[in-house]
Amino acid sequence: MKLLITGGAGFIGSHLIDSLLSNGEEVVCVDNLRLGNKNHLKYAIKNKRFQFYNFDLMNFNKLHKLFKKEKFDMVYHLAANSDIQAGFNEVKIDLNNTFYSTFNILSCMKKNKVKKIMFASSSAIYGDLDKKLSEIVGPLLPISNYGAAKLSSEAYISTFCDNYDMKAWILRFPNVVGWRLTHGVINDFLYKLSSSPSELLVLGDGKQEKPYLYIDDLLNAIHLIVEKSNENINIFNIGVESSTTVEFIAETTIAELKLKNIKIKYKGGQKGWIGDVPKFRFDTTKIRKLGWLPTLTSNDAVLLSIQKEIEYRN
Amino acid sequence: MKLLITGGAGFIGSHLIDSLLSNGEEVVCVDNLRLGNKNHLKYAIKNKRFQFYNFDLMNFNKLHKLFKKEKFDMVYHLAANSDIQAGFNEVKIDLNNTFYSTFNILSCMKKNKVKKIMFASSSAIYGDLDKKLSEIVGPLLPISNYGAAKLSSEAYISTFCDNYDMKAWILRFPNVVGWRLTHGVINDFLYKLSSSPSELLVLGDGKQEKPYLYIDDLLNAIHLIVEKSNENINIFNIGVESSTTVEFIAETTIAELKLKNIKIKYKGGQKGWIGDVPKFRFDTTKIRKLGWLPTLTSNDAVLLSIQKEIEYRN
Repeated sequence: MKLLITGGAGFIGSHLIDSLLSNGEEVVCVDNLRLGNKNHLKYAIKNKRFQFYNFDLMNFNKLHKLFKKEKFDMVYHLAANSDIQAGFNEVKIDLNNTFYSTFNILSCMKKNKVKKIMFASSSAIYGDLDKKLSEIVGPLLPISNYGAAKLSSEAYISTFCDNYDMKAWILRFPNVVGWRLTHGVINDFLYKLSSSPSELLVLGDGKQEKPYLYIDDLLNAIHLIVEKSNENINIFNIGVESSTTVEFIAETTIAELKLKNIKIKYKGGQKGWIGDVPKFRFDTTKIRKLGWLPTLTSNDAVLLSIQKEIEYRN
Repeated sequence: MKLLITGGAGFIGSHLIDSLLSNGEEVVCVDNLRLGNKNHLKYAIKNKRFQFYNFDLMNFNKLHKLFKKEKFDMVYHLAANSDIQAGFNEVKIDLNNTFYSTFNILSCMKKNKVKKIMFASSSAIYGDLDKKLSEIVGPLLPISNYGAAKLSSEAYISTFCDNYDMKAWILRFPNVVGWRLTHGVINDFLYKLSSSPSELLVLGDGKQEKPYLYIDDLLNAIHLIVEKSNENINIFNIGVESSTTVEFIAETTIAELKLKNIKIKYKGGQKGWIGDVPKFRFDTTKIRKLGWLPTLTSNDAVLLSIQKEIEYRN
C-alpha cells in the first residue's frame, strides 16, 4: 500500500514510519519541520520506499498536487501543534496546525477519492472530566486549544465518513513516551537540565498524574486496530491503566542523568499550566477486547523513555 | 445590558431580538443577510435601543472594531449557515459561516474582555445516535458539515471559557418552527407549493420523525436558562418529547393552504438527504428541572407555524 504520513518527522510519526517501512509499505511523509526533526528520519531516508516532502498542510494547492500525483491508499494523519502550552497565548496555532490541517487533508481525500484515514486524536478532547474516560462519555469539553482543535477534527472526520463514504480510525492517544522526543514533560526536563542548573523548575505541584504509554506499545496498538476493527468509524482510547506523577518523572530524569545536588522546585498549583488536565484515567476495555495489552506500566515506560532518550541525544 | 445578536435577521434571531428589546435591553444586530431577511426586523428598527450592521463575521477587522466601539455585556451567537443540505456540496460554507464565525466571535470577546456568550448549538452535534440524547451521551459523531461546525464551535467555546475566564450557555436547539421562516421543511413545502403544482415532492419516505419546538417556547427556554443556570459552561438540550413526521407536515401544509388534488410524491429512502438525521429523541430532563415546559406539542407547533407563516407571507 502507498501511505501518506503527515507529521512524520515528529516523535510518534517517525517511529510509525520506521515500523510501516519494515512492514513493506510505501511511505510518503509530509512535515513542515516546525516541531519535527529531519534527523528522526535518518533510517527512513535510506529506504527506496520512502519519500519526504517539506511543506505545510495549510498549503492546500501543494497538498492537492501531491494527492493527485501519489494516489494514496490511506492517510495516517499525525501532524499537529504538539506544543499545547503555546496554543494558550496564540490561539491560531492550533486552529491552523491542528484543525485546519485536518480539514485540508479531508478535502484532498474527498477530491482524490482516498477513503481511509487513521487520525491521531488525544485524551485532550475529553477535557477535565471527573470520571473514567470510556469512548462514549460526554460532554466533551476540552480545556486547551489543542483539545478543541482535535475534537473539531474528529467532528469533521465523522461527517466526511458519513457524507463521502470514507472510513476512519480515530485513535485517542494518551501521553506517549520513548526516544526522539520533540515535546512533553521529559523533553522539557532534559532541556532544562542540559545547562547544568542547581535546580529543576517543575510547573505545578508535581502531583499531576497521568498514564504514559511507551511508543512501541502505541505502534502495536495502531497496527492492531487498523487491521482488526472495521466499522465505518473506529474510535479507540489507547492507554495504560497505571499512571505516573510528574514528581516521579522529575526525580527519575535527575537520577538517570546522574546529576547530584539538584533541587526540585515546584511552582503553581494543581495544574501545571492553563490547558493542562492534571489527572485522567482512560477506560481501555474496548482496545483490550481486541487482544491488546501494553507491555510496560506507565512508570516503566517513563523510565525506559528517559534512558533511551539520553542515549539517543549523546 | 448591551447585547450583540449575530444572525439577528434570521428566523430565530429576529424573534430573539424582539423579545430582548421588549425586555428593555439594548441590542446590536450583525447579519450578512445571506439567509437572513431585513424585513424580519421591521419592528426592531423602529426601536431606539436597536442597531443593525450588515456585514459578515468572517470580516474580523470590522467585527473587532464593532466590539471596541460598543462594549457589549454579552453575545447571543446565532449566525450560521442554516441550510444544512448546501453544506454537503460545498464544505466551506459551514466551515466559514458556522464554525469560523464562532472562532472570530470568541477571539473578539477575548480581546475585548466580553465574558458571556449564549451559543445556538444544535441536535446535529449528536449525529445519528441510536439512543435518547441527554447532554452527556457520546460519542459525538455528526453526519453533516453543519453538525461538525457546531460541535467544533462548542469545543472552542469550552476552551475559551476555561482558558480566558468566560461563561457560556450552550443551548442545543431541536427543529424550531414559527413564522418568518428562512429554511427548513415547512419553508421548503410552502415554496414548492407556491407555484400551484399538481404534486409535492418530499425528500425521503415521509417517515422521518423529529421533535419540533415552537419559537415562543424556545425563547422562554433561552431566557430562563440564561437567568437561572450559572455554571461556567451551561449545556442544555431544548426540546419537546413529542415528535412529528414529515408526512404530517406535508399533509398539513397542503390542507392549510386549502389546496386540492395535490399528490404527495416521496423520493428516496429513510433519510431525506445526506446529512439528515431521520429520527432523534432529546432527553429534556435537565431543562425540565429548571421548571420549563413547552406549551405546544410537536404537532401543534407545526400546525401553528404553518398557519402563522401563511398569514405572515400574505
